[in-house]
Amino acid sequence: MTAFGRSIGKFALLCAAVIGLTGPAHAEDGYDLWLRYRTPATTSSALKIEARGDTPTLRAAGEELRRSNFFATKAPTILLATATDRDVAALRLPLAALGDEGYRVGYVTLGNRRTLLVTGNTDRGVLYGSFALLRHLQTGGSLDRIDLTSTPRVKLRVLNHWDNLDGVVERGYAGASLWDWWTLPDFRDPRYTDYARANASIGINGTVLNNVNAKADSLTAPYIAKAAALADVFRPYGIKVYLSARFSAPIELGGLKTADPLDPQVAAWWKAKTDEIYRSIPDFGGFLVKANSEGQPGPRDYHRTHADGANMLAAAVAPHGGIVMWRAFVYAETDPEDRAKQAYTEFKPLDGKFASNVIVQVKNGAIDFQPREPFHPLFGAMPKTPLMIEFQITKEYLGFATHLAYLGPMFAETLGSETMQTPGETVAKVVDGSVEHHTLTGMAGVANIGRDRDWAGSTFNQANWYAFGRMAWDPTLGAAPVAREWAAMTFAPSPKIVDPVVAMMMGSREAVVDYMTPLGLAHVMATGHHYGPGPWVANLKRPEWNPVYYHRADKAGIGFDRTKTGSDAIAQYSPALARQLANPATTPERELLWFHHVAWDRRMASGRTLWAEMVGDYDQGVGYVASMRRQWDALKPSIDSARWTKTATYLAVQQREAQWWRDASLAYWMSVNGLPIPAGTAAPAHDLAWYKAQHFPYAPGNPQ
Amino acid sequence: MTAFGRSIGKFALLCAAVIGLTGPAHAEDGYDLWLRYRTPATTSSALKIEARGDTPTLRAAGEELRRSNFFATKAPTILLATATDRDVAALRLPLAALGDEGYRVGYVTLGNRRTLLVTGNTDRGVLYGSFALLRHLQTGGSLDRIDLTSTPRVKLRVLNHWDNLDGVVERGYAGASLWDWWTLPDFRDPRYTDYARANASIGINGTVLNNVNAKADSLTAPYIAKAAALADVFRPYGIKVYLSARFSAPIELGGLKTADPLDPQVAAWWKAKTDEIYRSIPDFGGFLVKANSEGQPGPRDYHRTHADGANMLAAAVAPHGGIVMWRAFVYAETDPEDRAKQAYTEFKPLDGKFASNVIVQVKNGAIDFQPREPFHPLFGAMPKTPLMIEFQITKEYLGFATHLAYLGPMFAETLGSETMQTPGETVAKVVDGSVEHHTLTGMAGVANIGRDRDWAGSTFNQANWYAFGRMAWDPTLGAAPVAREWAAMTFAPSPKIVDPVVAMMMGSREAVVDYMTPLGLAHVMATGHHYGPGPWVANLKRPEWNPVYYHRADKAGIGFDRTKTGSDAIAQYSPALARQLANPATTPERELLWFHHVAWDRRMASGRTLWAEMVGDYDQGVGYVASMRRQWDALKPSIDSARWTKTATYLAVQQREAQWWRDASLAYWMSVNGLPIPAGTAAPAHDLAWYKAQHFPYAPGNPQ
Repeated sequence: MTAFGRSIGKFALLCAAVIGLTGPAHAEDGYDLWLRYRTPATTSSALKIEARGDTPTLRAAGEELRRSNFFATKAPTILLATATDRDVAALRLPLAALGDEGYRVGYVTLGNRRTLLVTGNTDRGVLYGSFALLRHLQTGGSLDRIDLTSTPRVKLRVLNHWDNLDGVVERGYAGASLWDWWTLPDFRDPRYTDYARANASIGINGTVLNNVNAKADSLTAPYIAKAAALADVFRPYGIKVYLSARFSAPIELGGLKTADPLDPQVAAWWKAKTDEIYRSIPDFGGFLVKANSEGQPGPRDYHRTHADGANMLAAAVAPHGGIVMWRAFVYAETDPEDRAKQAYTEFKPLDGKFASNVIVQVKNGAIDFQPREPFHPLFGAMPKTPLMIEFQITKEYLGFATHLAYLGPMFAETLGSETMQTPGETVAKVVDGSVEHHTLTGMAGVANIGRDRDWAGSTFNQANWYAFGRMAWDPTLGAAPVAREWAAMTFAPSPKIVDPVVAMMMGSREAVVDYMTPLGLAHVMATGHHYGPGPWVANLKRPEWNPVYYHRADKAGIGFDRTKTGSDAIAQYSPALARQLANPATTPERELLWFHHVAWDRRMASGRTLWAEMVGDYDQGVGYVASMRRQWDALKPSIDSARWTKTATYLAVQQREAQWWRDASLAYWMSVNGLPIPAGTAAPAHDLAWYKAQHFPYAPGNPQ
Repeated sequence: MTAFGRSIGKFALLCAAVIGLTGPAHAEDGYDLWLRYRTPATTSSALKIEARGDTPTLRAAGEELRRSNFFATKAPTILLATATDRDVAALRLPLAALGDEGYRVGYVTLGNRRTLLVTGNTDRGVLYGSFALLRHLQTGGSLDRIDLTSTPRVKLRVLNHWDNLDGVVERGYAGASLWDWWTLPDFRDPRYTDYARANASIGINGTVLNNVNAKADSLTAPYIAKAAALADVFRPYGIKVYLSARFSAPIELGGLKTADPLDPQVAAWWKAKTDEIYRSIPDFGGFLVKANSEGQPGPRDYHRTHADGANMLAAAVAPHGGIVMWRAFVYAETDPEDRAKQAYTEFKPLDGKFASNVIVQVKNGAIDFQPREPFHPLFGAMPKTPLMIEFQITKEYLGFATHLAYLGPMFAETLGSETMQTPGETVAKVVDGSVEHHTLTGMAGVANIGRDRDWAGSTFNQANWYAFGRMAWDPTLGAAPVAREWAAMTFAPSPKIVDPVVAMMMGSREAVVDYMTPLGLAHVMATGHHYGPGPWVANLKRPEWNPVYYHRADKAGIGFDRTKTGSDAIAQYSPALARQLANPATTPERELLWFHHVAWDRRMASGRTLWAEMVGDYDQGVGYVASMRRQWDALKPSIDSARWTKTATYLAVQQREAQWWRDASLAYWMSVNGLPIPAGTAAPAHDLAWYKAQHFPYAPGNPQ
């Protein structure tokens, strides 16, 4: 999995024998991710790959195909060539619509020879086509019938690494940062190449190397050189490097007295700094900025708007073709308004005020990566501004690395949400630019990748990385088909494995919702690390840091009233949707307590009271984990021992913790509502004091 | 490399076919350490291993032998049995002298059959014998002639992990802590088993899991359970778990008002805590304590002695057979005395005052793990007290993970130092208990192990782990033979590889001395992280934190006068040695500036002035690194690409940094002595201000 051993000739490429390995000589430790090119033992045979042109990207595509032994028995001639190749052009295929990154893979006749053509308008297209071909074969597709055509619906498909320069990953649960800043730029760990391969295989084309809570040091010459070394490794795989920029860097690094975006010296400093970066990284993607949020500096420190700040940086990167991703995740400690409303309040008036190379990055929901959130009201509300959606792949609020929670359904749920701004308008259609006619479009995912050997802390966490990439390429793919692909590639393309694995996955996120935050509850996690239940927490300095702020439970009822009688946050949605959400009866029950404060004895659709329904949901979540354990146990004969054992262990932990979430939450709610546990359900194992006494001083992902 | 697939029958063991693999299907990434059981391709054959008895340790020994394919072609019958086995007893071999851990491996005739017997008085002896057999074959030994007998000279062969509970390793340069405290005790990472295998293969029989700068939390119930899970994994490999104990834990955990060791409540708290630990870990090794040093709490906070503190803990562990390792690395911020003298001053009067299950752990030198230090004056000075020696395997002051510095010669130099207390007395003979007739003996090494795939941050760092273990087993082995073993096992047992690799290794630590701290200089590293040169640093709060405290350079000369005219630290050595050290002319030049302040124009044995000699040493160090690069380049065809490339990259870094050390040091010395650079040598590349301006805010291994 390291350096490429063979080089490719300048125009045509030799035959290379592939030894058919019957299996790995080392244990399955997950390092291979879904890129496992194993088939039943085959005899070795000649594989003929011809690459037209000798770019690093075409070389990467050829090497990738050669890693597999799918072609060992049949050995078709494979031609990797772009649309401008004379032979390809002569075929008069309809390739123009593929754009910069699309691909077409299929058999053609060249001369008299049946040839498997992998093509696109660019070598990146050919690379993506090569991975699509491998995916087709990894998932059990036939080598005889191949007709694969695809072009991405979203332009920027970007990972956000919240990696600090000291190697600690904020909200990271898979070991230290993959970037070994200390040995960069000298040592280019082979893992960087494997990271790029994995990303390219799912279409990710950008990576923000450092935490949005940024240090100015990442913009100093030594760190630019380190980023440049990574950019060199990633470039053949079509992946651009971006940096999170600390807005006050002109003060900290430049010695200026201000970082006011309208100060000419400040703009000049950023221009010079940007030019310096582009000298080292000619295809540098641009900046990601978290400004005036959770203590980060920003333009509002100087009474300027977010647009003023973003446009100043945009002007610096524009001559180089760079962009600025400006985050809308803002809430101010001085603002008593409902936290869920603040981003909209601040950004909506700026619609149309951003430079053309700025894209505003909006989290999927208005709070912060909860197990479930209604879609963010900014989607559809800023038609003149490109908005990219930000999902969290790492599971800060969903059990860290340990809980099995496949996020595909969550991504699909948000993307499929109807904004009701225009007919048929969904969040996906805002994100892919189709309803508002933007060409600058994007999806960002906060990465779950670390230096652990299995990259993401568990096998099933790899599925979330995979699903993010695939759904950024095409938000309409659907969570279940993506899960099937992943399971087939990660384990084996057998229905006996894929069916139960996908069954486990598809309900797993809903189970987390059920045992952590049923019926629209949010942010009831413990303080700081967000691990485990803490609905009772009420003593933190800022009101919106406290779970009681979000659930507002009292003797009479529970939930955050966001209608006119409350914060009126629903007014931020389209009038049609707001009307629907104004009435608890027409609000989806899964979002009920997000929008309404309702009585404990409210009658639900099931006929049960709210209280009985909540308890039922908690029990359903715990029960789902138990059922996943049974399904996984049944798979023991079909899965290699190392991966089976680790997952089985984690499922046992998850069941214990799901029970803890359920019991602690119920103990607290009962202390508030004074209600008895519904008949036929178990009382919490401990009293409330016991749950409150649990502390986890060294929970991961929570740098001080 | 993970779970053991096969089980061993109760009394006799089946034949197991070993498939002859021609090579690894995965890249050489160093994960296998020196346990690489690869030989030229062989045909598969039956291997017959019979184990008498079914203990986890014997099972581990059998599995270890089965991992290799050394026996594939010849397939002798191998018998694993302890001395009490009836057949073994009948052979009347002289096994009693092997003690608890020794082994004998050789052919015997049992029935009519020539059998390769691996035996010892315990199953641990059999395990060590199995590893010795593998080492014999890995290093090219014949399968026909085998006669291996060894017994360890040192009882406690212990790694000290300076691993914090948040996963950061103090002075760790190989990624996060190997212990994933978060997923323990549930998830037993297969790496824990491989760690135990690696340690058992070199005879290490104890591990202190947590940093000597300890948190009391490691003594809470959840962390005891985590430690117990590790102890379970390590037990079959003969490895005991120890914990660093925070002396003030009775206050922090027990709610007491004091941690005074003479307070009965305090003693009772420790006794109860210790009993609690032993309920989870019946073979718990005991405590390691850093007390009253660098801010850690200790008995002196209550005007008690170190013996009072140690003996109180010793009483708690004694009923369980546990021990206390009490560190002598102490220096007080309030003590104006030469730091090098303070440990002796404080501990020497306590000789004979420690309980019989206390061993005092003394660093190899009197300061702190410098590239070279004279041996610690406590060795030989406390004849009534068992002293264990503490080496640093991780290279805090020797270039971190990046520099190639084989520490075998450093270990050997200290161990071979003559104390001149009694005729022929060396540090090794103090440590192994032979001169002072102690049975409780030990060597501790501060581990260089992290979660990086290659364990130690580089291939050559693995050699230091290896050498520590082998030399703890037998301090007389010698650095070169150990290096030869390691090189043969790690690369291949061919003189064409072993000769140049060992040649590189053997001079590598001296090269670091030359380019960092020639002629007895010490502690001239930059502040905090200790990375890079900082001889000019003079502004730190405590005098002994400043490099100027150690080198005392002025216009007239350089060095720390530790004779009667100075701190008189030499008086802490035996009178014979002190006489020798009193005179610069009879002091070894390599330690000259450690003991004497001498003139820049002092004439050295070479005929050069001190100044010219120093410059020559710096240049020699830099030149040695250049020569290692040439030797490594020549090995390119013989070493796998991944390991070759990483080492080549690191050697290039090392050469650049050696030059930096040389230039920065010279620039500073010249600013002090006003002397010109000697004719024929190069001036520093930059001026002193440039070197002073270098900063490394995120240097690894330096938790705040």
